[in-house]
Amino acid sequence: MDTGETLLLALDLTGTFAFALNGALTAMRVADVDIIGVLTLGIITAMGGGIVRDMLIDSLPPATFSDWRYLAVAAGGSLIAFFLGRRLSHLMGPINMLDAVGLSFFAVTGASKALAFGLGPAQAVILGAVTAVGGGTLRDVLTKRVPNVLRSELYAIPALIAATIVVVATTFHFYGLPIALVAAVLCFAVRMIGVRYDLNAPKPPRRNLGG
Amino acid sequence: MDTGETLLLALDLTGTFAFALNGALTAMRVADVDIIGVLTLGIITAMGGGIVRDMLIDSLPPATFSDWRYLAVAAGGSLIAFFLGRRLSHLMGPINMLDAVGLSFFAVTGASKALAFGLGPAQAVILGAVTAVGGGTLRDVLTKRVPNVLRSELYAIPALIAATIVVVATTFHFYGLPIALVAAVLCFAVRMIGVRYDLNAPKPPRRNLGG
Amino acid sequence: MDTGETLLLALDLTGTFAFALNGALTAMRVADVDIIGVLTLGIITAMGGGIVRDMLIDSLPPATFSDWRYLAVAAGGSLIAFFLGRRLSHLMGPINMLDAVGLSFFAVTGASKALAFGLGPAQAVILGAVTAVGGGTLRDVLTKRVPNVLRSELYAIPALIAATIVVVATTFHFYGLPIALVAAVLCFAVRMIGVRYDLNAPKPPRRNLGG
Repeated sequence: MDTGETLLLALDLTGTFAFALNGALTAMRVADVDIIGVLTLGIITAMGGGIVRDMLIDSLPPATFSDWRYLAVAAGGSLIAFFLGRRLSHLMGPINMLDAVGLSFFAVTGASKALAFGLGPAQAVILGAVTAVGGGTLRDVLTKRVPNVLRSELYAIPALIAATIVVVATTFHFYGLPIALVAAVLCFAVRMIGVRYDLNAPKPPRRNLGG
Repeated sequence: MDTGETLLLALDLTGTFAFALNGALTAMRVADVDIIGVLTLGIITAMGGGIVRDMLIDSLPPATFSDWRYLAVAAGGSLIAFFLGRRLSHLMGPINMLDAVGLSFFAVTGASKALAFGLGPAQAVILGAVTAVGGGTLRDVLTKRVPNVLRSELYAIPALIAATIVVVATTFHFYGLPIALVAAVLCFAVRMIGVRYDLNAPKPPRRNLGG
Repeated sequence: MDTGETLLLALDLTGTFAFALNGALTAMRVADVDIIGVLTLGIITAMGGGIVRDMLIDSLPPATFSDWRYLAVAAGGSLIAFFLGRRLSHLMGPINMLDAVGLSFFAVTGASKALAFGLGPAQAVILGAVTAVGGGTLRDVLTKRVPNVLRSELYAIPALIAATIVVVATTFHFYGLPIALVAAVLCFAVRMIGVRYDLNAPKPPRRNLGG
């Protein structure tokens, strides 16, 4: 494994860890879960998006599920949340930042893998976003909440931007590590700007609701 | 593509459009979703049933998901809901009718595809109904509702009738376009009668509940 | 089919029946479901865990879904719940016991099947538990509850113990019918002790929550 691959693996595992930690903390905050719940929901947050993508593109068993390193890192992040819990609350800044790293990474690798399995461009963009946001969506459903990603914040949109860059670059044959990094950094930046300035995706025009 | 195939494709896309429009309107009515939520829930309502069926029969990637025309029509229906919203409320009659077209079509094509993939008769009936009602069920779960199809109305039952006709006709070797149309028309009629007279599937005998 | 196989099939169908009956009764108690809902939720409770496992290990169409005997037994259990309902309430002792038989059986056969499909040891343990508890989890999501298995009781833990025994024994080449029975009996015993003494899995340390 050369330096580039080691770096990619490290970033991917970092994202997995951050998703599990953040997912387990969210689950503990919104539902009265026990250790099985914390572990399950942390792991599902971290790996659920990739698992759904792999089911849809028929790459089974799912890649991260089969690789013990991802399972171990996801379980570790969940257990840290279980034992430290609220004491991590003053670290939410860094945790949100690591979560954005995961979002960016998963969007890029998700879109890229979908293309490699022969899916079309629109499908690859969607699957990039599914990889990035699918795990948190499953966690929210299991803790009886309307998934955050469907309601507020800029969470799916940066993932869709990154996945679109990957797909366009691949279509025009100039995709490579530099473009992947550009896409990931842009996703990260949009996500962090959204967190900082509390931006949301557009809601339906108000005159069209209720009644 | 001959006229028959064009007609089938047109009906199938009509159903997809109606499911997406209706699904997105329902999502906007019951949850505080943003544009990502409206698009996601509209597309899931339209294509979720077929995707679940294709996962279970191992026909991956799922057919409608791979075909950009279905994605485009589903996204279009969702966006119309997003921008017009309440102003469509006086069109709920025609929208319900188009939705019943989708229900009928998906039940027939779903059962038929399951048989073509070698599933048994009971399985094909179930998968016909799953194709027809699965997307709306997923939408309801994502918007934190007990799925309507499990609680009230005549929605699964007409789909099960149509799927059963397809399976019986195929088993006795007289399945063809005429039978498919009979099954779809019957499903459509039962569904519309249910809507018109507000009929529901039977509930458990009351003396057996609560306590 | 020799006596051993007949016994295994009988135990497996017994577990399927108990899961469907118990799942349908739970669904009727917590949600206002109709006959479609009772049937759907009973069958999903009974077969959902195995279906999720088979999707993840790429054994499609799912085994129990393809075998009409499992479908028939699951539908039968659900219909008994629908028609008898509350009158079964004085039988909850035996029903809980049969449910524990299902839990034990599904954990053992689930882990064993995952290993046979080449999954690693940690993955096989997880999939054994998923087979045992996945159906009830899906039912709870569909009836808008945070799944019980994530919150309380000893339900996943006995399944994880049984699956771990199967995996360890297989790894060291002494797995066989006697070990399978030991694993199942131990799972059953831990589950019944948990029911009897109202034991729960550990919660997060209280000082780490809320705020």
